Amino acid sequence: MSVPGVGANGAPVDAAAPDTGLLAPVRAGTPVETAVSDPAWVRAMLDAEAALARAQARLGAVPAAAARVISETAGAAAPDPRALALASRETANPVVGLIQDLTRRVAAVDPVAAEYVHRGSTSQDIFDTGAMLVARRAVRLVLGDLEASIDALGVLASAHRDTPMAGRTLALHAVPTTFGLKAAGWRELLRDAHRRLERVGRHGLPVSLGGAAGTLAGYLEYAAVDGVTTDPGTYAAELAEAFAEETGLAVPVLPWHALRTPVADLAAALAFASGALGRLAVEVQNLARTEIAEAAEPAVSGRGGSSAMPHKRNPVLTTMIRSASLQVPALAGALTQCLTTEDERSGGTWHAEWLLLRECLRLVGGAAHTAAELTRGLRVDAARMRANLDLTASRVVTERIAARLAPELGKARAKELVAGAATEAEATGESLAAVLGRTAGQAGLAGTEGLDDLCDPTAYLGAAAALVERALKT
Amino acid sequence: MSVPGVGANGAPVDAAAPDTGLLAPVRAGTPVETAVSDPAWVRAMLDAEAALARAQARLGAVPAAAARVISETAGAAAPDPRALALASRETANPVVGLIQDLTRRVAAVDPVAAEYVHRGSTSQDIFDTGAMLVARRAVRLVLGDLEASIDALGVLASAHRDTPMAGRTLALHAVPTTFGLKAAGWRELLRDAHRRLERVGRHGLPVSLGGAAGTLAGYLEYAAVDGVTTDPGTYAAELAEAFAEETGLAVPVLPWHALRTPVADLAAALAFASGALGRLAVEVQNLARTEIAEAAEPAVSGRGGSSAMPHKRNPVLTTMIRSASLQVPALAGALTQCLTTEDERSGGTWHAEWLLLRECLRLVGGAAHTAAELTRGLRVDAARMRANLDLTASRVVTERIAARLAPELGKARAKELVAGAATEAEATGESLAAVLGRTAGQAGLAGTEGLDDLCDPTAYLGAAAALVERALKT
Amino acid sequence: MSVPGVGANGAPVDAAAPDTGLLAPVRAGTPVETAVSDPAWVRAMLDAEAALARAQARLGAVPAAAARVISETAGAAAPDPRALALASRETANPVVGLIQDLTRRVAAVDPVAAEYVHRGSTSQDIFDTGAMLVARRAVRLVLGDLEASIDALGVLASAHRDTPMAGRTLALHAVPTTFGLKAAGWRELLRDAHRRLERVGRHGLPVSLGGAAGTLAGYLEYAAVDGVTTDPGTYAAELAEAFAEETGLAVPVLPWHALRTPVADLAAALAFASGALGRLAVEVQNLARTEIAEAAEPAVSGRGGSSAMPHKRNPVLTTMIRSASLQVPALAGALTQCLTTEDERSGGTWHAEWLLLRECLRLVGGAAHTAAELTRGLRVDAARMRANLDLTASRVVTERIAARLAPELGKARAKELVAGAATEAEATGESLAAVLGRTAGQAGLAGTEGLDDLCDPTAYLGAAAALVERALKT
Amino acid sequence: MSVPGVGANGAPVDAAAPDTGLLAPVRAGTPVETAVSDPAWVRAMLDAEAALARAQARLGAVPAAAARVISETAGAAAPDPRALALASRETANPVVGLIQDLTRRVAAVDPVAAEYVHRGSTSQDIFDTGAMLVARRAVRLVLGDLEASIDALGVLASAHRDTPMAGRTLALHAVPTTFGLKAAGWRELLRDAHRRLERVGRHGLPVSLGGAAGTLAGYLEYAAVDGVTTDPGTYAAELAEAFAEETGLAVPVLPWHALRTPVADLAAALAFASGALGRLAVEVQNLARTEIAEAAEPAVSGRGGSSAMPHKRNPVLTTMIRSASLQVPALAGALTQCLTTEDERSGGTWHAEWLLLRECLRLVGGAAHTAAELTRGLRVDAARMRANLDLTASRVVTERIAARLAPELGKARAKELVAGAATEAEATGESLAAVLGRTAGQAGLAGTEGLDDLCDPTAYLGAAAALVERALKT
Repeated sequence: MSVPGVGANGAPVDAAAPDTGLLAPVRAGTPVETAVSDPAWVRAMLDAEAALARAQARLGAVPAAAARVISETAGAAAPDPRALALASRETANPVVGLIQDLTRRVAAVDPVAAEYVHRGSTSQDIFDTGAMLVARRAVRLVLGDLEASIDALGVLASAHRDTPMAGRTLALHAVPTTFGLKAAGWRELLRDAHRRLERVGRHGLPVSLGGAAGTLAGYLEYAAVDGVTTDPGTYAAELAEAFAEETGLAVPVLPWHALRTPVADLAAALAFASGALGRLAVEVQNLARTEIAEAAEPAVSGRGGSSAMPHKRNPVLTTMIRSASLQVPALAGALTQCLTTEDERSGGTWHAEWLLLRECLRLVGGAAHTAAELTRGLRVDAARMRANLDLTASRVVTERIAARLAPELGKARAKELVAGAATEAEATGESLAAVLGRTAGQAGLAGTEGLDDLCDPTAYLGAAAALVERALKT
Repeated sequence: MSVPGVGANGAPVDAAAPDTGLLAPVRAGTPVETAVSDPAWVRAMLDAEAALARAQARLGAVPAAAARVISETAGAAAPDPRALALASRETANPVVGLIQDLTRRVAAVDPVAAEYVHRGSTSQDIFDTGAMLVARRAVRLVLGDLEASIDALGVLASAHRDTPMAGRTLALHAVPTTFGLKAAGWRELLRDAHRRLERVGRHGLPVSLGGAAGTLAGYLEYAAVDGVTTDPGTYAAELAEAFAEETGLAVPVLPWHALRTPVADLAAALAFASGALGRLAVEVQNLARTEIAEAAEPAVSGRGGSSAMPHKRNPVLTTMIRSASLQVPALAGALTQCLTTEDERSGGTWHAEWLLLRECLRLVGGAAHTAAELTRGLRVDAARMRANLDLTASRVVTERIAARLAPELGKARAKELVAGAATEAEATGESLAAVLGRTAGQAGLAGTEGLDDLCDPTAYLGAAAALVERALKT
Repeated sequence: MSVPGVGANGAPVDAAAPDTGLLAPVRAGTPVETAVSDPAWVRAMLDAEAALARAQARLGAVPAAAARVISETAGAAAPDPRALALASRETANPVVGLIQDLTRRVAAVDPVAAEYVHRGSTSQDIFDTGAMLVARRAVRLVLGDLEASIDALGVLASAHRDTPMAGRTLALHAVPTTFGLKAAGWRELLRDAHRRLERVGRHGLPVSLGGAAGTLAGYLEYAAVDGVTTDPGTYAAELAEAFAEETGLAVPVLPWHALRTPVADLAAALAFASGALGRLAVEVQNLARTEIAEAAEPAVSGRGGSSAMPHKRNPVLTTMIRSASLQVPALAGALTQCLTTEDERSGGTWHAEWLLLRECLRLVGGAAHTAAELTRGLRVDAARMRANLDLTASRVVTERIAARLAPELGKARAKELVAGAATEAEATGESLAAVLGRTAGQAGLAGTEGLDDLCDPTAYLGAAAALVERALKT
Repeated sequence: MSVPGVGANGAPVDAAAPDTGLLAPVRAGTPVETAVSDPAWVRAMLDAEAALARAQARLGAVPAAAARVISETAGAAAPDPRALALASRETANPVVGLIQDLTRRVAAVDPVAAEYVHRGSTSQDIFDTGAMLVARRAVRLVLGDLEASIDALGVLASAHRDTPMAGRTLALHAVPTTFGLKAAGWRELLRDAHRRLERVGRHGLPVSLGGAAGTLAGYLEYAAVDGVTTDPGTYAAELAEAFAEETGLAVPVLPWHALRTPVADLAAALAFASGALGRLAVEVQNLARTEIAEAAEPAVSGRGGSSAMPHKRNPVLTTMIRSASLQVPALAGALTQCLTTEDERSGGTWHAEWLLLRECLRLVGGAAHTAAELTRGLRVDAARMRANLDLTASRVVTERIAARLAPELGKARAKELVAGAATEAEATGESLAAVLGRTAGQAGLAGTEGLDDLCDPTAYLGAAAALVERALKT
């Protein structure tokens, strides 16, 4: 097989169709894009080849000099991804072409060393190890951006610990809450996302080392040919450890060509993160609605301009984050389904993972980056929150009134009486306190002089402040 | 807002992260990739702007000369998609930057004409019309490739109309069938896919024309400013028709900014196609299994090479097709969910469609292209089919024997007797006919001299041949 | 194999775990629930068995008397679905137990007729034909409910053809629109759903007739045993037609045990319908928000009560509809993936379809039913729409002002000037007209005496009325 | 609001449409079905109400006697789920009706106690706490069944540690492996599933306690009314702890009405489990194929019977497991998307979770139960494995030969020579050793006397045995 166009000059063969992020503003130009790009993937696979040679050299299965040449050459090589992509049509994966290219480069330096490139290995070991390296870099970026949002939301939650606003359920004002509690909730959800991703990043990204069908037979055979005399089990274990040390990845219990736990774990954690970020986005977008206007995206000159309407400042950050949260769970679901794979290496389910995994990393990375900008600059309008809270003329505290009336009237009659008063207040435009003054009096209530206080929504915030404090302390 | 880096020289700003197809062998280098690439999308949006100007000119709302300059300039422009992508972070879509670039280019030729660029329009009109143009091109490619497969499978079905093979159900040999019937089934499913895609391509791809919030008010206002006196309803209808004629797209009943039927229809038809192609792929892959070996992918020098195993010829075409069929239904499901959108234009669900739609088009396009190569060169081993059919020593025809014995023994006893004979034949290694000769005699059957014929699997093909003929005729 | 507990008395074996709709208010008690229930599915499969016997009798392959007994017995039988479910563990489908039960019942009436039950058939023929009968009934219910909504929305669209309201894009007021146009859009989307479902219901629901592996060999063999002398192709075609006539279903081109077009088509049409209904629901829910309050669900005594808050009237109808629209696209995506099936009959993908299909039918059926109630009683507050339109102090018409200023100032400067004026108006609380009066004067505009009219949002409705009329006419 | 038909006798109102498991053999009659049934859900919600009353009593907010009556009455109540389901149409959830029913029952015993039912609470607190109780029970069942499979696979892996079989990649024989390693892989994947589910079950299932909008204001107000003087934060914390102790569930950091981590975590862990079980199923099904025949499902009298074919023993267990693995990831993806929820409590996304969660629990529960039966009785045919390994006449060891020739010929020429020999052996029917004897001799190899040993596939098992031992030790 020849790799079309990967010649001496390394010039691109066909660069007609690059994806530039045009259809994905959420990640266009964000750091994760570079981290998971095709060149980054090529780089990671070359790093995997280099690390494998060094690991084998540590065990005596590859001459130190050869490992050095391979490592240096792989470190400097930058084969054209497009050429590798085109060549992959012949083998259904880009590794075969990559190895040919690397072998050629190494041979140009040291023909003996070229014999030790990809020694005893298989495409999937290199691709999957490379994928884990890419994932690690991307996950780190996501974690950093989540931390930025968590910090920013912590500041907001603290600052607005006591800022009353309408608690909304099923789209309607229910009882009062505070913006601090809302922000603490967003923060907690992002912390949950952070914990899940951090766990995967720390323990869940292993090297792939199985050889042609997961027995490491090729590695062992070449090692034997090269005079290594360690017994198979020990050599296999030591090679896995050395490979893990060289890459900084984890040691898997078993070769995972067909045991796709690492990919499924990434999928789950990324889907969670996209959902958590999605909640932040839809919430802010709702609060930004013209009629609600309790929050707004950071004002940046030129940001949010409309092609048609001069006055508009579109909530573009939330729009972009939301666009990711609508995609990732479906992509992640498809990734999870790839756990159901057949044979020692599948003819299809493995190959289906690649785009899905990259897009999950990229969309979540972009969304997390965008969220960091959103949370750092979020504008909160406490006065408007207070004003909106008055929209229902205190009906937002009917739960409280009913509780107060319950001992005397019984829960059922109390609810009934309050519901009636609320309806009357709504119809007449009177305040609930006024109506209740009459009604509750009729109901034989002893004293209703405290009704105005009772109807003050800002006095019915439950444990909101304490909950915020508890959440910020954990 | 400034578009970073789209200066006089038009040089790319940051080309660090192109997607080259490295992670998607199924479509790397296939025609669809270019058809739906970022440059193609930019081209289609420019075509939409040009067509809009011409349509407005036809109705007198834009001077003919201005429309000509816009049309020519848009036709020649090739702004850097990466710069537009980066700029899209500020507006959550790439159209605002595109218009600024186009306006600048037109102004350089004719400042008056520049006033008429994107006249009265909104980003989504341009983006969606462009998307439909891209989709049309991609759908045509898919249809062409499906036709190639349909033709090739028709030839196979006809040639193997009478080639007996094991019919397999729940993974086991059940009763005989023919390879012709199997191929006719694959063909029929691809025809179903073709019909669904063709229907969408013919009627389901409309221009987008709504203006800022779907009332066409901007178009009408500018037209009025420019002296057009037609009444609003008539002008709106005529503009839609003119725009449709200039683009070759359909006229929608209503502006569809938030009525996403065209996208949902594409999603459904593409998901269907991916599933149909997926069946072809998993079937061929199963038939290619070492133990079954009834079919093989076309032998192409260098194709299917393994990085580890010299002897292997991996079924790479089916692997690639399958990789697409495992992704597209999930992506399409997410697209369908975007029907549930809010407001006159959504802040998120629209933006979530873009990548998903492009990837559906691209994966199905690549899979269809790959399938055309697979079906044209599929190698069928009729002798091996015949040999495999004998693996169960005629147990594959027990249904038939039971039917023959039923009148005398009753259905239940007949099934029991045959099941017993099959078990005995399996245990002893005798042929079913031999065992039945004894058993059926014991059961008091009149004549069993025809047992060998009765046990011949090639004589129990039902209506397979007739079904093939009927399917090929329709 | 014995069917546990299906004895003479037919008493339920284990009815411990029925699903009552407790977790699915959207369909609890709606007509579709009964139409797709387990008893309905059993009934449909018995109808399929009866129709098959009658069809075979028409062709002389089953004695008329036997077909009559089978038909009558199947018509009267009501085996316990739970017993069939439990028995299905042994065969992975409920048909084997059903046939045993039916055979026993027929034998009790006429032992000879019992020989002709399920003659030459296979489980999947019966199950799939039954599924199509169930689907047809459910689709009819959905179509009827969609029609009710389409009618109700037509009335609303017509009545509010000229009712101005804010057009919202990316969550913010953009330019004015009318409620009539919004309602016409909801209606059009439901019409699209209706058209797609109607097409599937009319042409897309075929009988299943393939026998053990899709060749109809069993049917032919038994027919031959019974003295039918028609040639295989003709008999197969005639049997399919007779079966179709007896059931009212369509004739498929080929047996579709492994060609799952009918199921994929249902999935696509149902997912579309759920998405279309979902848009209606999220839109109404947004309009019902306390701060917006432009629409409300029908007021029904006792409806929407909260367990905690006496004053609340929760938007329960939209909540229920939305709950369906969040589920169905994912279920449908999984159904579509089942197109990728292997062999003549799959050991898994077929079985995965059943629950998914039933739930899609049931959720969409419930959502459509709920939507009919919602649309018939939707309360629209035109005064509030008008009031909300004033919230931005005419900034909602900046697009228009910019258009008017463009000829004099050029598009860019016009947009700039208007954007500046809008910002100033927002900051000072002045009306846009007032600010513009000053600014536009400074800009040297000839006459601004019409500024108040120009700033009237109700005078900037574009072609909304005409679009409504066109949509209602089609 | 009245609950139709929940009268004194508690008779079902409309039991016309129960789901019996007819469409879900994978879980019909398995223990999980009862654990997550509608009656179980009602029970769990009643348990939550009882636990809440006891928790409030511990803090002095409810009289001890009242709590006792509520607890006992709730413990004995069995309201008709169907009636609750029908009533839920009025409130979009079944809790309102449940509380009315419970209040009535308590009032019949002690009217004062009835005042304390659902004191200060909200529907979602009860529903979600109930859901966690249901999930806990279901998760325990799944864990137990996974353990059974893990044990059974451990025995198989150990017994077949050295049983050679073909390692298959991309559907073709690649290099040898052992069945022990394959079984150890299945086991490891199930252990991964177990670990993930166990983690969720242990830490991830919290009580829900937020009151109307997550501030616990109602709980606090009623407590104040009842004379509790603890400060809000302390009371809220103590109530959560007491509620957690009474239910055995965890204490959440914040009320999670709109922070759906517990549900998303369950979804992810269940999707993982379904995928892991799915791999086991597709693998066994492939090994059971007539041509491969290396494994078979446990033989159980009557199991796997076909309605048409007397000889067949269908692999029904794997079929059922696979049916679940094709559904759950999509359902789980939709659940994950519900993380993106709005407001303090959503009007739709919460409601969309219920069916999805239950079905995930139920399908995975059924699949795990089925897998336990499969693994305990799996039949392995080592002789057939050995025979299949010879099918390629030693081409399965070409990797090894190439490694041995590499030092002398260089890797590239070695691969070429071996590939040529493999092709020749395939064409001529000779053994690879024979062809290599000639070819390698020509290539000037020193000694080829060990070629037969070198070509013995059972001597090329790499570290398979050691990997099995390591995996079983962890």
